[in-house]
Amino acid sequence: MKYFEDFAVGEREQFGSYSVTAEEVAEFAGKYDPQPFHLSDEAAAKTHFGRIAASGWHTCSMTMAMLVAHMKDDALASRGAAGIDELRWLKPVYPGDTLRCETAVLELRPSRSRPDIGSVRSEMKVYNQNDEAVMRFVSIALIARRTD
Amino acid sequence: MKYFEDFAVGEREQFGSYSVTAEEVAEFAGKYDPQPFHLSDEAAAKTHFGRIAASGWHTCSMTMAMLVAHMKDDALASRGAAGIDELRWLKPVYPGDTLRCETAVLELRPSRSRPDIGSVRSEMKVYNQNDEAVMRFVSIALIARRTD
Repeated sequence: MKYFEDFAVGEREQFGSYSVTAEEVAEFAGKYDPQPFHLSDEAAAKTHFGRIAASGWHTCSMTMAMLVAHMKDDALASRGAAGIDELRWLKPVYPGDTLRCETAVLELRPSRSRPDIGSVRSEMKVYNQNDEAVMRFVSIALIARRTD
Repeated sequence: MKYFEDFAVGEREQFGSYSVTAEEVAEFAGKYDPQPFHLSDEAAAKTHFGRIAASGWHTCSMTMAMLVAHMKDDALASRGAAGIDELRWLKPVYPGDTLRCETAVLELRPSRSRPDIGSVRSEMKVYNQNDEAVMRFVSIALIARRTD
């Protein structure tokens, strides 16, 4: 199990491969973000998207799916997250794209109010198959501390 | 149609009502955030969540659904969003909760690179049925400018 004490500032990881399908883009957008440019190529053609693009929140959710799969490989002692800073949707994500993740640990901070956890501040960058960065954010993850 | 020019700093709105169901929490978590405390009451009982709580990204997505429904009422000339700052998951969101939104316009900025749009920086606060703030973020929305 990977605990708060096992993280190091500057640590980098690359992981994940997520195929963005037209069906999933339509399903997510229909439920949570039914703006025309996420649902119709004709409407998207009138915007900078050009054609149907995934909801930015869908990109966040697909990124989380890659992260949780990776955390399972590492058996991370996750206790949720406090939040996200500086989230930027840098390029549209299109059906047919394949996404991957790169992370770097920026800062480690033991919790003052909850001695059983610490917060790990990391940069997340998501790239498409052309190595274009499509999204960036800084996450504040809560990780259990070793008790032994 | 509501354009960039129709926004005013300090403008506040309240809208939305979203019933969080156990089925939807399980479906979203299973697909995008299958951490034990989003899937099992027993696993959640070992964490500060206490019982199954919605994924934070699910809370973002439900918030977006309320926002898009509200934008349709207003016929907002949305062109997507640049990003999100200072996102904080303040309290767990549980199945059975009912969420609502409060927004305040913080800043208006015409785009330098794209004269057809402007960015609207707004605070979003999401409350549950007990008027507890469960999430807060600052959004940077891209809104079309009037062409006439």
